Amino acid sequence: MSPEEFRELGHRVVDWVADYWSTVDQRPVLARVQPGEVAAALPASLPEKAEPLDAVLADLDRVLVPGLTHWQHPRFFAYFPANSSPAGVLGDLLSSGIGAQGMIWATSPAVTELEQVVLDQLREALGLPESFARSGAGGGVIQDTASTATFTALLAALHRATDGGARRAGVPPGRFTVYGSTQAHSSLLKAAMMSGLGEAAVRAVAVDPTTQAMDVAALREAMGADVAAGLTPVMVQAAVGTTSTGAVDPVAEIAPVAQEHGAWLHVDAAWAGVAAVCPEHRWIHDGVEHADSYVTNPHKWLLTTFDCSAFWVRDRAALVGALSILPEYLRNPATESGAVVDYRDWHPQLGRRFRSLKLWTVLRSYGLEGLRAHITNGVRQAQHFADLVRADARFEMVTDPVLGLVVFRVVGDDQRTMDLMEAVNAGGTAYLSHTKVEGRAALRMAIGSWQTTDADIDTTWDALVSHLS
Amino acid sequence: MSPEEFRELGHRVVDWVADYWSTVDQRPVLARVQPGEVAAALPASLPEKAEPLDAVLADLDRVLVPGLTHWQHPRFFAYFPANSSPAGVLGDLLSSGIGAQGMIWATSPAVTELEQVVLDQLREALGLPESFARSGAGGGVIQDTASTATFTALLAALHRATDGGARRAGVPPGRFTVYGSTQAHSSLLKAAMMSGLGEAAVRAVAVDPTTQAMDVAALREAMGADVAAGLTPVMVQAAVGTTSTGAVDPVAEIAPVAQEHGAWLHVDAAWAGVAAVCPEHRWIHDGVEHADSYVTNPHKWLLTTFDCSAFWVRDRAALVGALSILPEYLRNPATESGAVVDYRDWHPQLGRRFRSLKLWTVLRSYGLEGLRAHITNGVRQAQHFADLVRADARFEMVTDPVLGLVVFRVVGDDQRTMDLMEAVNAGGTAYLSHTKVEGRAALRMAIGSWQTTDADIDTTWDALVSHLS
Repeated sequence: MSPEEFRELGHRVVDWVADYWSTVDQRPVLARVQPGEVAAALPASLPEKAEPLDAVLADLDRVLVPGLTHWQHPRFFAYFPANSSPAGVLGDLLSSGIGAQGMIWATSPAVTELEQVVLDQLREALGLPESFARSGAGGGVIQDTASTATFTALLAALHRATDGGARRAGVPPGRFTVYGSTQAHSSLLKAAMMSGLGEAAVRAVAVDPTTQAMDVAALREAMGADVAAGLTPVMVQAAVGTTSTGAVDPVAEIAPVAQEHGAWLHVDAAWAGVAAVCPEHRWIHDGVEHADSYVTNPHKWLLTTFDCSAFWVRDRAALVGALSILPEYLRNPATESGAVVDYRDWHPQLGRRFRSLKLWTVLRSYGLEGLRAHITNGVRQAQHFADLVRADARFEMVTDPVLGLVVFRVVGDDQRTMDLMEAVNAGGTAYLSHTKVEGRAALRMAIGSWQTTDADIDTTWDALVSHLS
Repeated sequence: MSPEEFRELGHRVVDWVADYWSTVDQRPVLARVQPGEVAAALPASLPEKAEPLDAVLADLDRVLVPGLTHWQHPRFFAYFPANSSPAGVLGDLLSSGIGAQGMIWATSPAVTELEQVVLDQLREALGLPESFARSGAGGGVIQDTASTATFTALLAALHRATDGGARRAGVPPGRFTVYGSTQAHSSLLKAAMMSGLGEAAVRAVAVDPTTQAMDVAALREAMGADVAAGLTPVMVQAAVGTTSTGAVDPVAEIAPVAQEHGAWLHVDAAWAGVAAVCPEHRWIHDGVEHADSYVTNPHKWLLTTFDCSAFWVRDRAALVGALSILPEYLRNPATESGAVVDYRDWHPQLGRRFRSLKLWTVLRSYGLEGLRAHITNGVRQAQHFADLVRADARFEMVTDPVLGLVVFRVVGDDQRTMDLMEAVNAGGTAYLSHTKVEGRAALRMAIGSWQTTDADIDTTWDALVSHLS
């Protein structure tokens, strides 16, 4: 395929995407296929001869699309908002076309420098502390996911706690402990598993039963008991917007406790953090100025095509110290001058995509006004949905809504709640996911897609009511 | 931006990419900017108002493009081939537009099942063993990079070696050892650092000074000495195509040594593996049928836009055992039935992009014939370049060429070789990178971009000769 053929076929693929977005609301949100059904419709072997793009698009329509759960559907309310926008897709297309590798500054300087600049711009826009700015000892980097951010935060914490011993000689099991609430994201446990600490190092700290936010007294007690037992607290993870209910851990109160024991404080604001682009939501960042690291995902609620997880540290030396390598074939004068950042040393991978280009395209295409309007719209829709729940005696709120997330249930036993979710999801109008709060089933209505209108909220409510047995 | 505006703007971005590809050979391959130059040309803050895409494209042309090193340039011969193609970009655009999350089967079944099918198809096309097929105990997954594949291979190896103890209670330092040649990719060291083993666990096994391939006698000796000292060999990494010179470790001879000590055998064929799509190059996979895991990167030499690293294991239970997590909000009937694969448990991240779509688009758009022609063309161009080197007494070959990689130097002291590289790279005609072989500087001419013609090889040779002092 030559550049000229690409031009023609590219226009057709753009049209395919535009048509998909324009018509996706006519499809059931949740895929209706059985396990193995998509695979069974595809050939076992590759074709010997080249096939035209038409054949690929025909199979996409015939086999794959019916097997998709549509994350860009306006009534997709499961998990978290839908991580894309037309501007994000265009920025990503530019990145694909340029096809540059940003593993070190020297392999394509603009890839590194745009990322540095955009993360400083976003830091400022979210009211994050100066200590994360690259002008000081900190800095930002785009990770693929918040899971990777949490993992690298833990590696940096171990590096600091062992004065570099961890990377040289490993980490002794049974010595270090890690803290998060019972509602912390599963990636904290996974980070401990992958880092050599093991699951046993993770303490699940109790939460306030009403707010589901970390109980700081319980944290203090857990850390104290561990220290008394001869263990070393290495990291505390505070969640700003838990996955389950959107709970916001009190970072400002957690920080002095972490500090007292010399533990690294990592703030996981994967979903909620981007809401701080609105001054009225900036309270979620209270205390973040004391954090050692912080992550939020523009690929969740800030319109940026997956993957794009914005991660900042206040001491980049700890992160780079934990992860740096320098084989001969990557030696170059710019690296040796110390005048540049080589992002290969900021994450587990070596190769890296030009991801700042899509984030930059999104941020400029919306402007701060547009970004605030997007967040405000989602929050307003969530408040409207919560009002509908509160006004209907057959339902109850499980927690107070946080930003764009409403957690509620059907009054009665858990089965009624789960049955309703399954009925609505199977009906195809909308897609919600569930959680458990204080041991009881609850539904999550996670609002914030670029495609969602007020009418979509009402349509979803009507579907819930109509499926109520 | 509405879907209709996207349609119009999308056509313009497609045209931007087509124009970029058509004219990139008129640009210097290597960026000429100084550290900080790109960043200084960008504003410190985000705009308050939305900006039109024109403004973004204008800044892209004015500020960013001059700061790029052009990986899609036909005379980019540094590091490894250029990881893209028009078909790959179109597949990636479809993936961006669909914007689905494949973290578990249930979040979008087609994302998981296309990946399973395409990796089985590619496995067959590369002549990889049946033991990696999903129909048995094995399976394939797309990782972002080979670094991540190596890291997950090590985690699976530790899981197997400890009967699951590693994920629960961590890994005791000073107990496990890991082996690769002195030429193993730096990601092996990084994997040991991240897994909690530490750098000290890695043994750099000597290579044959001529072929630069692992010396199996030295491996046997190193493993034996470690076992005698009470240590446990946990993984051996064999390189099929080292980064430095393309050396192919003798997997068939390494396998019984690894097996004797119960060590996991991981094969890193990141760059070279895809060449096995041609039957005449399939010798590189001799012995791979004994491997526990294997990785090759379609995003290097198989025309697939970064990132796309194809990773297979023969025992998926060890991999999933090391990495599985199941929070309540991801529970679902399909997972609990055991009838589906949830790829979240195959890698460090939770969220994942629909990457199989671009790989599938590439593989079908070229067909096996087209893929073979692409590889064959690169190998032929490398042979031609090697002939030019051999015919000129001012140059010498450093190693025999392997597939598309030619490693050579200027006769004389190392400075002459490094000076020549810097002169050619600064001249802008071509971009080559360097390495050290047996302590001496060498240049790497890594051929295989979709844009490279025979004339580009000759032009590059002419540039080398003309800059020779």
